[in-house]
Amino acid sequence: MIPTTYAVARIEADPTLPIIRITRDFAATPAQLHRAHTDPELFARWVGPRSLQTRIEEWDARTGGCWRYVASREGVEFGFHGTFHEIRPDRIVQTFTFDGDPDGVALETLRFEDLGDGRTRLHAQSLVDSFEGRDAWLRSGMESGINEGYDTLAELMTDGAL
Amino acid sequence: MIPTTYAVARIEADPTLPIIRITRDFAATPAQLHRAHTDPELFARWVGPRSLQTRIEEWDARTGGCWRYVASREGVEFGFHGTFHEIRPDRIVQTFTFDGDPDGVALETLRFEDLGDGRTRLHAQSLVDSFEGRDAWLRSGMESGINEGYDTLAELMTDGAL
Repeated sequence: MIPTTYAVARIEADPTLPIIRITRDFAATPAQLHRAHTDPELFARWVGPRSLQTRIEEWDARTGGCWRYVASREGVEFGFHGTFHEIRPDRIVQTFTFDGDPDGVALETLRFEDLGDGRTRLHAQSLVDSFEGRDAWLRSGMESGINEGYDTLAELMTDGAL
Repeated sequence: MIPTTYAVARIEADPTLPIIRITRDFAATPAQLHRAHTDPELFARWVGPRSLQTRIEEWDARTGGCWRYVASREGVEFGFHGTFHEIRPDRIVQTFTFDGDPDGVALETLRFEDLGDGRTRLHAQSLVDSFEGRDAWLRSGMESGINEGYDTLAELMTDGAL
């Protein structure tokens, strides 16, 4: 039996909860993947579609801290902000709002599952308060941004940047 | 037709989402109700069951801030903590974790609806990531704590403490 691997992100909608789940494997330790999500300079290098540049405006990666970044392309800017509800070695819980939808809030949970041999499975869960809001995210073209971001992160790992 | 009023909190489970909704009317302005939820000394005076004393340990009531308080009775302590994702005049979005269930996180949204004549309707929504978690909260006896807390808050308003 061949074990399941997620070399490309699996993105799925929960059938009964307003949740998007993303699963992706990386050739990195949990500590490296944790650093990729908490070190602002590293995070800015990989997050989002390749065509966007990320500028960190606020970043206090501790339980109870907050964050804000702006993604831009040719002068068009997209801002995002939230709080770090909790940061543990194996789990990060944070809130997420896109400035363009200021009433929308997602509660995101990231888990870093150690697969051994220097490999880690990222489990990212995004919870919102309506199925309409969740499905609008799924239709927004988020897959390409997510996949390009994670591919860039995998390249940073290969290049030894983490 | 007699308009609906919520002199006692209505507490209801959403039929299709892992959400608890609480509705309660107060003889106060939206600004007073906002202050009751953001001023730490006021908040400590009303939140929770009457038999518990509340001690604020951390309180930074701004968008991106965090909070922590401990409720105690005869030496037994219950800690709670979270972040303020957003604080606006008519809406507060915050996260909530009970130390006794450290993996559980609720995303809470409070809205202050101005009913006119110095009356305001509080709409509190609590979103979690499973129906089991939501229903465990409903079975925990939360109603008495919520009703006693809001009754105390209403008394503070009558006494002119806000």
